[in-house]
Amino acid sequence: MKKGRSSLEFERPPVVEAAASVVGPKEGEGPFRGMFDQVETDPMAGKPTWEAAESFMQKEACRLALEKGGLEKEEIRYLFAGDLLGQLIATSFGVKELEIPLFGLYGACSTIGEALSLGAMTVAAGYGERVLAVASSHFATAEKQFRFPLGYGNQRPFSATWTVTGSGAFVLTDSSAVLKPRDRKGSGQAVITGITTGKIEDMGVKDSMNMGAAMAPAAYSVISRNLMDFQREERDYDRIITGDLGVVGRTVLLDFMRASGRELSEIHMDCGVEIYDREAQDTHAGGSGCGCAAVTLAAVILEKVRSGEWKRILFVPTGALLSTVSFNEGQTIPGIAHGVVMEHRDL
Amino acid sequence: MKKGRSSLEFERPPVVEAAASVVGPKEGEGPFRGMFDQVETDPMAGKPTWEAAESFMQKEACRLALEKGGLEKEEIRYLFAGDLLGQLIATSFGVKELEIPLFGLYGACSTIGEALSLGAMTVAAGYGERVLAVASSHFATAEKQFRFPLGYGNQRPFSATWTVTGSGAFVLTDSSAVLKPRDRKGSGQAVITGITTGKIEDMGVKDSMNMGAAMAPAAYSVISRNLMDFQREERDYDRIITGDLGVVGRTVLLDFMRASGRELSEIHMDCGVEIYDREAQDTHAGGSGCGCAAVTLAAVILEKVRSGEWKRILFVPTGALLSTVSFNEGQTIPGIAHGVVMEHRDL
Repeated sequence: MKKGRSSLEFERPPVVEAAASVVGPKEGEGPFRGMFDQVETDPMAGKPTWEAAESFMQKEACRLALEKGGLEKEEIRYLFAGDLLGQLIATSFGVKELEIPLFGLYGACSTIGEALSLGAMTVAAGYGERVLAVASSHFATAEKQFRFPLGYGNQRPFSATWTVTGSGAFVLTDSSAVLKPRDRKGSGQAVITGITTGKIEDMGVKDSMNMGAAMAPAAYSVISRNLMDFQREERDYDRIITGDLGVVGRTVLLDFMRASGRELSEIHMDCGVEIYDREAQDTHAGGSGCGCAAVTLAAVILEKVRSGEWKRILFVPTGALLSTVSFNEGQTIPGIAHGVVMEHRDL
Repeated sequence: MKKGRSSLEFERPPVVEAAASVVGPKEGEGPFRGMFDQVETDPMAGKPTWEAAESFMQKEACRLALEKGGLEKEEIRYLFAGDLLGQLIATSFGVKELEIPLFGLYGACSTIGEALSLGAMTVAAGYGERVLAVASSHFATAEKQFRFPLGYGNQRPFSATWTVTGSGAFVLTDSSAVLKPRDRKGSGQAVITGITTGKIEDMGVKDSMNMGAAMAPAAYSVISRNLMDFQREERDYDRIITGDLGVVGRTVLLDFMRASGRELSEIHMDCGVEIYDREAQDTHAGGSGCGCAAVTLAAVILEKVRSGEWKRILFVPTGALLSTVSFNEGQTIPGIAHGVVMEHRDL
């Protein structure tokens, strides 16, 4: 059902039937240690290249999500997938063997929000009983592509974020097809009741070492639009969760919201702020990358919604739309965000 | 309605209400001269960089499609868009000013098929009355990204294709909202009655100068799957139209089809083969790029369906999933294709 110009509310909300997270060693040692499904102790995961390692993690996340749901890959109708690399090579080589009809997506670090949005639209429309949404990032593939060779040991400013190595995968399922919670105890489920789709926001930020500031306007826009479209107040959400603004972007977002008369500080959470111990792990402004929001949703957030600790959340991964080409040509860094409303249900 | 595992048939087929094509000078001088909506006489379109020129063409294609449909940008619910460049920068900087909620897509040269598929799914599900699908490519941005600096003047083998400079945009509309054909004479319309979504196909081709051979298996797979899912024979289509296989890829596709007992040579058309005069324009195996299939559909194919000269076609843009990183690491070039069934209707 249409809600305003940017939002949809689903009459039959798709269920997040199963989810899985695979991360690298740094993420496995961070504040969420013990909560991920799989931690690779080698950032190359035994593969010859970083890109192959990222592809492997994406494949593993899909495999584990299917396994946890007791599902075969043949039960998945469509795959919505993406990553940060040029021409989505982590995805292409990651999901090839799944042999599932694929929609390749690029929303920078907002990609898992885009994948969950399109996946939920597909299931809610009855186009398929089950779809898979997956996204990944890798610190070394991202640094190689967007910044400097790791061997240079370049200095990172405190506004810079650390790209998360990991992948999160989610099976979205029509509620009539969810017989029982397969991969855990209890009867609580997390369902996607609505989405708010972002447009490109550009306030002229040009500093690729401060992507939090570049993305904050996109998060602000989607959150404001969501509250307006659904006629909700911020207190109608137990948490409003951004993907990877980091400490700088979070401050900008909270300031923007405050200027429009909304105080989010008590209910706002940013996956990038939470995923690392900033002091002990030397990650500066926090975590980032497609994987940041995806693994935090799979490993941490989802369980809190399923258990009912959080009844309703707004999940807003944010992306910075830049490439080395546009950066070197002096272009700005536009942002985009994709909002997903997730609610607790006893099915 | 589900058809097999990869296809959907729409109960309310979305109408291609308006379309527009913008191309560079080489395309404007080719066999389709006089049929495009706008021909830029300068490949840089007066912009400081090639990337800015490609963005401009994408914006112009959207603007013209809206203008031809007598529509305002506020009447468009979602935008499905993509290009070939890393992190989709042609799209990000091209469609920014439209301020339409955006789903960024990457399917290499199959992107317009992916955009039309997701756009049609969205309209047919009632999520919005109108969406816009757009894709672009540019010879110079693609050569710079995937191959060699133009100034090197490197030799191109005869199996290489020439990336089309141009962008095609399409407004897909719920049939109840199409009051009359706005941008032309006659009452005939082109509607999207179904889609067949491709999975990644990889037969091990590693030659980035022979992308036709890399993509042909993906086209073969989608065409075969479409015929099976819809229980049709090849003669049930007036044309089966691939995006940019070129002369090498076309030969491979026809051979594959023949081996499975189907003779496509009389009804097969490839946009890449048709868009240039191979001898006079020195384009070797033909045209390629997201723009190739998109501008040919907008400028040539669509009118034949609207007029009823072709009653039903299968449009299958194909993409080669490679980057310089994967290529330099010795990886193969997987392919993907997205099939769109377009039919004539008198509305």
